[in-house]
Amino acid sequence: MKKLINKPEDVVREELEGIVVAHPDLVTVHFDPNYVIRADAPVKGKAAVISGGGSGHEPMHGGFVGVGMLDAACPGAVFTSPTPDQMLEATKAVNGGAGVLHIVKNYTGDIMNFEMAADLARSEGIEIESVVINDDVAVEDSLYTAGRRGVGTTVLAEKVCGAAAEAGRPIKEVAELCRKVNGWGRSMGMALTSCTVPHAGRPTFDLPENEMEIGIGIHGEPGRKRLPLASADEITAMLMEPILGDLPYKAGDQVLLFVNGMGGTPLIELYVVYRKAYEMATKHGLKVARNLIGPFITSLEMAGMSITLLKLDDDLIKLWDAPVKTPGLRWGM
Amino acid sequence: MKKLINKPEDVVREELEGIVVAHPDLVTVHFDPNYVIRADAPVKGKAAVISGGGSGHEPMHGGFVGVGMLDAACPGAVFTSPTPDQMLEATKAVNGGAGVLHIVKNYTGDIMNFEMAADLARSEGIEIESVVINDDVAVEDSLYTAGRRGVGTTVLAEKVCGAAAEAGRPIKEVAELCRKVNGWGRSMGMALTSCTVPHAGRPTFDLPENEMEIGIGIHGEPGRKRLPLASADEITAMLMEPILGDLPYKAGDQVLLFVNGMGGTPLIELYVVYRKAYEMATKHGLKVARNLIGPFITSLEMAGMSITLLKLDDDLIKLWDAPVKTPGLRWGM
Repeated sequence: MKKLINKPEDVVREELEGIVVAHPDLVTVHFDPNYVIRADAPVKGKAAVISGGGSGHEPMHGGFVGVGMLDAACPGAVFTSPTPDQMLEATKAVNGGAGVLHIVKNYTGDIMNFEMAADLARSEGIEIESVVINDDVAVEDSLYTAGRRGVGTTVLAEKVCGAAAEAGRPIKEVAELCRKVNGWGRSMGMALTSCTVPHAGRPTFDLPENEMEIGIGIHGEPGRKRLPLASADEITAMLMEPILGDLPYKAGDQVLLFVNGMGGTPLIELYVVYRKAYEMATKHGLKVARNLIGPFITSLEMAGMSITLLKLDDDLIKLWDAPVKTPGLRWGM
Repeated sequence: MKKLINKPEDVVREELEGIVVAHPDLVTVHFDPNYVIRADAPVKGKAAVISGGGSGHEPMHGGFVGVGMLDAACPGAVFTSPTPDQMLEATKAVNGGAGVLHIVKNYTGDIMNFEMAADLARSEGIEIESVVINDDVAVEDSLYTAGRRGVGTTVLAEKVCGAAAEAGRPIKEVAELCRKVNGWGRSMGMALTSCTVPHAGRPTFDLPENEMEIGIGIHGEPGRKRLPLASADEITAMLMEPILGDLPYKAGDQVLLFVNGMGGTPLIELYVVYRKAYEMATKHGLKVARNLIGPFITSLEMAGMSITLLKLDDDLIKLWDAPVKTPGLRWGM
């Protein structure tokens, strides 16, 4: 296992200690239980937006805390759901009296623990909305999930809902918006290599030198199929075809095209993929109005990528373009 | 070789084709010879700033073209200097009549070709300033270089000089500023794994599972020493000590601390490194006033990182904070 870490059991804490000294202007980190909140939290009268999940997907979610995006993120151990305790404490810490939205990726542990935290928070008088993201067209059920997994659309939902909350929209509207984004987002991913969870010390799965996994999950859980290595164009088509075939929208619609790196794939390759994905989306009659290219929802050092298509309307474009200032995503401020 | 590419000889062209469709609002790409220029180039009356070098270090340099940073970038083949022809054509394309600064990393091929381009441009009546970046404290001479190599400080020089040019400073001042940044920047890198140049098809060097290379160059050229794998804190100290020992500044000075990923190392590990580097810089009496954390000057999919320290004065802080809008670095707009 070749990693820039100290003891495996200290990785998450030490990463958070790095965030503390790197971004005191943007975020505050609370330890035991671990959560990252906006430096100016709670913002009085503003609906708050929270997400969380296992660590190992950075910059998601801790890197998306800041003005115009998340109010808080709850990082679990690597590839392990955060506890209800973390989520509850984060919820209380960012509650500005106008309700809190929990954005939850569809993994069994996350769902269960966020539900428990929501119940506890409600019993303390906090209004909670909860939206589950389940945008992965690759598989119906998997090792970690009943139903579709929650992947790339989560990043886009966090940006858009964060902007809406920042603009003063009420919690019910922000939750409705999140459901719309989830309904309009479709994703699929693939891996060239496995990744190694620090405390496991060995690759999550074996992938021979001449094979790849299509439809991989962000924890390295099995996808649709193992295939011989193919060209970037062929691989891009293997992801884009199921996504395009599943779209609840039509020719002429505007979309955001998100090509995401899994952690170990360099940017030069993501642009090669983007080129082909853009061509296919355009041929399908879609108008690519916005994009995001880079490692935003990762799987440690896994080599590979995922593609997400999100339908945009004028409101979503306005919210996407709105200023954001977080460690992982920033523009306009 | 596991990469998301089509034919190895097409990688750079296809990456640029991806940039064309991804960022038409920011940049324009010219093919044969290949260069990337600001969408609004040439900007009349503004000093222009150009850089370039082999591809494989993305987002540097093409990802740093845009308002507030580079006017143009010349991408060579992977790990291969661009030609004088590329640099000359890019220089002419961005010349707004107020001179052009060439920021050149200290590699023999880059130096030679940028010098030739500068001579040709001068003979066409364009005022050229040229500054060589040589900030790598690891080795004096190497496979690609006489003297110190040019690494992380290049990214910082491109940001700061781009901001100065955007603010209307004359070319001679922008060049002087670039020399100041180079004089105040110190870097060193390390690798956990090799990388594979697409047209070579095999790793540039062998690095056994239990070893690392300290002082690596951004093309995988040899560093100071091979050592058994160590902890993140130990590795960070192995880079920070030579950097701190070479600093031309003193306790109480303000610095920018840049922890750079080599391409295959995930963000979670870079924050573990940042935590230790920050601690050491602070113990040394330096005040870390700004930072940059992520993959900005990479070596394809190499796992590893580099650290750069740049002394800051009030002017440099103002220029660092100035708005920038490029595919790879963006804030304030």
